[in-house]
Amino acid sequence: MFNSTVIKRAITRSRFQSIRLNSTVKLTKDSYPNVARANYAKLTDEHIAKFQEILSSNQLITDKDELLNYNEDWMKKYRGESQLLLKPKTTEEVSEIIKYASEQNLAVVPQGGNTGLVGGSVPVFDEIILSLAGLNKFRSFDSTSGILKVDSGVILENADNFLKEQGYIFPLDLGAKGSCHVGGVVATNAGGLRLLRYGSLHGSVLGLEVVLPNGEIVSSINALRKDNTGYDLKQLFIGSEGTLGVITGVSILCPPRPKSFNVAFLGVESYDKVKETFVKAKAELGEILSAFELMDHNSQVLTKNHLKTSHPLEEEHPFYILIETSGSNNTHDMEKLEAFLENAFESETISDGVIAQDETQIKTLWNWRESIPESSQIGGGVYKYDVSIPLDDLYELTNAARERLIEADLLGEGKPVIDAVGYGHVGDGNLHLNVAVRHYDKAVEKCLEPFVYEWVSGKNGSISAEHGLGFQKKNYIGYSKSEAEIKLIKQLKGLYDPKAILNPYKYV
Amino acid sequence: MFNSTVIKRAITRSRFQSIRLNSTVKLTKDSYPNVARANYAKLTDEHIAKFQEILSSNQLITDKDELLNYNEDWMKKYRGESQLLLKPKTTEEVSEIIKYASEQNLAVVPQGGNTGLVGGSVPVFDEIILSLAGLNKFRSFDSTSGILKVDSGVILENADNFLKEQGYIFPLDLGAKGSCHVGGVVATNAGGLRLLRYGSLHGSVLGLEVVLPNGEIVSSINALRKDNTGYDLKQLFIGSEGTLGVITGVSILCPPRPKSFNVAFLGVESYDKVKETFVKAKAELGEILSAFELMDHNSQVLTKNHLKTSHPLEEEHPFYILIETSGSNNTHDMEKLEAFLENAFESETISDGVIAQDETQIKTLWNWRESIPESSQIGGGVYKYDVSIPLDDLYELTNAARERLIEADLLGEGKPVIDAVGYGHVGDGNLHLNVAVRHYDKAVEKCLEPFVYEWVSGKNGSISAEHGLGFQKKNYIGYSKSEAEIKLIKQLKGLYDPKAILNPYKYV
Repeated sequence: MFNSTVIKRAITRSRFQSIRLNSTVKLTKDSYPNVARANYAKLTDEHIAKFQEILSSNQLITDKDELLNYNEDWMKKYRGESQLLLKPKTTEEVSEIIKYASEQNLAVVPQGGNTGLVGGSVPVFDEIILSLAGLNKFRSFDSTSGILKVDSGVILENADNFLKEQGYIFPLDLGAKGSCHVGGVVATNAGGLRLLRYGSLHGSVLGLEVVLPNGEIVSSINALRKDNTGYDLKQLFIGSEGTLGVITGVSILCPPRPKSFNVAFLGVESYDKVKETFVKAKAELGEILSAFELMDHNSQVLTKNHLKTSHPLEEEHPFYILIETSGSNNTHDMEKLEAFLENAFESETISDGVIAQDETQIKTLWNWRESIPESSQIGGGVYKYDVSIPLDDLYELTNAARERLIEADLLGEGKPVIDAVGYGHVGDGNLHLNVAVRHYDKAVEKCLEPFVYEWVSGKNGSISAEHGLGFQKKNYIGYSKSEAEIKLIKQLKGLYDPKAILNPYKYV
Repeated sequence: MFNSTVIKRAITRSRFQSIRLNSTVKLTKDSYPNVARANYAKLTDEHIAKFQEILSSNQLITDKDELLNYNEDWMKKYRGESQLLLKPKTTEEVSEIIKYASEQNLAVVPQGGNTGLVGGSVPVFDEIILSLAGLNKFRSFDSTSGILKVDSGVILENADNFLKEQGYIFPLDLGAKGSCHVGGVVATNAGGLRLLRYGSLHGSVLGLEVVLPNGEIVSSINALRKDNTGYDLKQLFIGSEGTLGVITGVSILCPPRPKSFNVAFLGVESYDKVKETFVKAKAELGEILSAFELMDHNSQVLTKNHLKTSHPLEEEHPFYILIETSGSNNTHDMEKLEAFLENAFESETISDGVIAQDETQIKTLWNWRESIPESSQIGGGVYKYDVSIPLDDLYELTNAARERLIEADLLGEGKPVIDAVGYGHVGDGNLHLNVAVRHYDKAVEKCLEPFVYEWVSGKNGSISAEHGLGFQKKNYIGYSKSEAEIKLIKQLKGLYDPKAILNPYKYV
């Protein structure tokens, strides 16, 4: 029963990819004329001949049309003009490619499923694209310990489907799971929908196989759950967005798959009551609470316009909450959930709510949360901000941004902005602010940036909770990190990649 | 009810400390004449005068007797001859001390609760001891998110007692909690008794404040649960054993405190059945399984000799298992535990067992697991090996070591070795091999080292699952890490601490 939710989540992102070929996204170098190409070598026939020695012919793509899908990002905001895509199938091939690129001073952008949201996975100029899609083998699974070892190019959904058969679950889930790679989610330290329950990848990834910028292969893929011998080197690569090395293999600890999933969808009258509900849910649902998702009223209006079906709750509310429980005994779980909801109703913390009665209803309820990104994008484009803010102020950013857009006369009928909506993972202190637009517009960008970053920084928040820095936020790291930290980050980049050939113009 | 277990656990270690002053442990430099003092400056009156400017007089200790407790390790295996102990109370004082030490080329050993088991927290020669015990302030606690911020010198048990009042729990517990510091457990990446449930510190530590070897203060202590802006620098310090910087503040995510604890103590006829029980427990107890501890027959014989009370199980068995569940509903938890045990009896996976009926019984059952370290030590001394091994071979090391000691005629009545016993955290693939001795003996050490490390390395295991490298295992890192990894580790040490003033002669 329980897995249908998971499968559905995968569909959302891939639906978009089919329309990519028709788009004419502006070249990044034209959108951002201040960014200059650095002094890397230009690709020559000699270089291509050498890559042909390393790979067989179908692993090298130079056709412009075929390259388009890899040059453009999913958001349709960034486009590079790489002339070469390489698709190695083994770690050794990756190593040879990187070693040669380093010797020749050729810039390289590693690319997983290309589902990133900050322009981190596409070239800015003519960097060679190194796709990891060909590294797609399952290496091993230990059914006693739950340790899964895979090539980095294995698609997340495939990994989870495999684990399902074994009674296990991948400790991370996100909308793009049908396209994104295991290596990609590790390289970007993706958060997603199961973080509340299973914690961050820094805790669950046990080992990595990585090709360093000089071509050397370093592996901790055979590491066990506990290993206190030396600095935990793999941690640096988790969230490094391909700037320190290319991840080619991942070992990850997977928990037993829950046998029972339940979902409730609630209406709440104020943000204070949202917080109250969260504290109660943590205390009363304890170990079975697996998602606590916030959606504001406007996010549901956008989604309703897009889905064109009736909303789960009859009446409208300023805020909606989706709660998921997952556990090993459905009777116990349902008892806990019902008792929690009863208390919450009685104390007037929540005003309205439904519990899914079957698999289809679970799917439907999740759909109202998971269709928000698509609903915000469908009108023409979306400016996405993914921030961490201490819980007390979490939602307030949405109001602040909305007011600012209204003041600047940018929001409304016939204006560039359709609406500014807020939703996110309350359990993780993570808000997604989506500004849905009819078309991308510099005036909107200027109205929001650096305003959003300054606002978040003023609350000691993070300007990127889970999406990363990529190209979009490279210049804004100072809003989240101190000068001392940035110095250490640059030192590490210099240590690992002195020629800066990996994923340039991004991150730091 | 449930907290008495926790309080008891704390007592074990501190009981030992009272007998320290009377001991005459051999100087490390005499036990290991091959290790030479490096070319650090020797402490002068001028240095002391400068430290007196930074600290008030009661924060500097030069008295030999007082220094003994800080020069000697808990195992009574290592003793340095530092002539100066500094006890700063603020991060700024730590910064000034380290800055001056760096300028003067003075070596420094940071020390927390000094409960480490690999000689990592005491000087080898005359290094200045920097105790963090004076940094013992609670900084803040957010009762919505569960984020606790403390000075690094706060004692683990005090942190947990504070959290208890707030309805939260520290996500790590270990025998030494009455003495060890929060900063110390982070610096050594301690594992302990709650890892199975709450995961590693790499996942739960949200931010650190650190003084770098040049005296600079770098802080991520205000980081939120999610922050994807730049390399996760704090990860390098988790488990760096004071070789990269001095941790002065810790921010950690704490889960809600379970409302119900249950403990079962089982007798099992073979190691294969232990594994079988583990797989069943994971599947049937799911989200409430919080400990799965293995004890072999001989470990219980040693413990019985020490505790001088009757064992929980009437008959003897080759293996014993302690299972703890913790959850939010005692009726549900007990139902799950009883159903699991019934199935396990019926399928003859387990032969015998008891469930604790109250707080006192929980305490008593845990005591048979937690007294093993003390019981192994009490006869004169103990060689401790703390290793990770893939589950299939986890216990086999104990047999291999025991046979080797018997062959060498070192084990038995009138011989140096009392017994070799195995126990540990099956859930984490972590075995503790304790070789209880009547006195420390080079012949025993030679019989076991590098034998144990070679054996573990042959199974792709780790020679230090949770205790760390320290002084004891510095030269054995090659058994767990490749040359490429060791090179990167040394590069990082060189980058952060080019003069190598922090915790020298250890780690790498």
